[in-house]
Amino acid sequence: MQQTEMIFGTRPIIEAIQAGKEVDTVLVQKNLKNPHILEVLDLCQQYNIPVQKVPFDKLCRLTNKNHQGVICFLASVEYASLDHVVSQAFQEGKTPLILVLDRITDVRNFGAIVRTAECSGVHAIVVPDKGKARIGGDAFKTSAGALSLVPICRTDNLNQTILYLKQCGLQIAACTEKSKKTVFDAEFTEPLAIIMGSEEDGIAPEHLRLANFSVKIPIVGKISSLNVSVAAGVVLYEVLRQRVR
Amino acid sequence: MQQTEMIFGTRPIIEAIQAGKEVDTVLVQKNLKNPHILEVLDLCQQYNIPVQKVPFDKLCRLTNKNHQGVICFLASVEYASLDHVVSQAFQEGKTPLILVLDRITDVRNFGAIVRTAECSGVHAIVVPDKGKARIGGDAFKTSAGALSLVPICRTDNLNQTILYLKQCGLQIAACTEKSKKTVFDAEFTEPLAIIMGSEEDGIAPEHLRLANFSVKIPIVGKISSLNVSVAAGVVLYEVLRQRVR
Repeated sequence: MQQTEMIFGTRPIIEAIQAGKEVDTVLVQKNLKNPHILEVLDLCQQYNIPVQKVPFDKLCRLTNKNHQGVICFLASVEYASLDHVVSQAFQEGKTPLILVLDRITDVRNFGAIVRTAECSGVHAIVVPDKGKARIGGDAFKTSAGALSLVPICRTDNLNQTILYLKQCGLQIAACTEKSKKTVFDAEFTEPLAIIMGSEEDGIAPEHLRLANFSVKIPIVGKISSLNVSVAAGVVLYEVLRQRVR
Repeated sequence: MQQTEMIFGTRPIIEAIQAGKEVDTVLVQKNLKNPHILEVLDLCQQYNIPVQKVPFDKLCRLTNKNHQGVICFLASVEYASLDHVVSQAFQEGKTPLILVLDRITDVRNFGAIVRTAECSGVHAIVVPDKGKARIGGDAFKTSAGALSLVPICRTDNLNQTILYLKQCGLQIAACTEKSKKTVFDAEFTEPLAIIMGSEEDGIAPEHLRLANFSVKIPIVGKISSLNVSVAAGVVLYEVLRQRVR
């Protein structure tokens, strides 16, 4: 289902990147500098795509076609329709549980969160077009395969998507250290979307405003916060605990 | 404050060990036997320092200086006395909570676990001499500084340490997928030590046998297990939830 697709040649690769395809890695021939290659390198920098400089021979072993000094691996994640996921959960008599990730860009954290989401019964993960982790080989690996199992929904307007979830009848819970209410005092048995923010900034204020309530994970030590993938695990398992009782 | 220091050459290493420095690991060149190396090996045995036999090349990748077949990492962590930590917790009227890590060697997982332990009120983390993560710069970084706050206790005999904790009046809970009881059905309000095992093998049978009970984290998806640092977070926060109520 998720297989890596390889494309080669400067023009196809530039088009793929510009079209917003999920690029895993770009291999560029060592010491090759021409305007097309420089354009590819520039785009890779813009889109945070890892580049490997490799010998000409390595590229030729990967394809016998005219690669023009550059080969690119696409991560072929199939994005899901949030609309479909939510209505399906309701139709099947389930209580929807959606996880919204606001600018969680660390690939290992993202992978671990997807793995936890799969284990704890999350119906879909929502990520913004900009400000998401690169969904490539590393994310698949740290997700222990969960990336092929949990629907990932991509949005170009996270605010609208949160509003849409609200209209569908979901409670929006923002997970933030600034909350007074702990996850253990919250009520998670209703249809629910949980927003987790980046470790650096937390949740953007514009999304925070849309939440029905906020919750924090209680901290009894001196370190002020948990790793975000651990925090996601604590919240999602508190939801599961409340729902299985 | 906590940085890993590397020293090399037989004489400096012999002096460091004899001076009582906290040595993390000694790497010795495979099949090398000369009086100096034998003296290092002998000291390592006396001082209970883990030794790894490695190829000559590996040593040369770590330093380009004359290592004489031996490199040593100084642990910049100050190990704590478990005895002291447990009796102090009891004296202060606290309910001891000890986390035992059996062969959790991934540095990022270890760091995240230490961070969670600090946030959730763990009194000490027990690690075996052999089969622990390298407690260096990376571990400090992923622990967000928690490694300077949570006492780390090192043991050369994990079985005896678990028995000791039992004698102190702690319940020993083994966290394993093979358990029938979930963490939500367990009773965590008594003095407690939780054993977490490696992601590959889980907890070694010899330690599992010593546990008073075992618990699992319920999984409702298809992936059979969580990342170990997420699992530790779920268990430790269930303990905290039960204890703050």
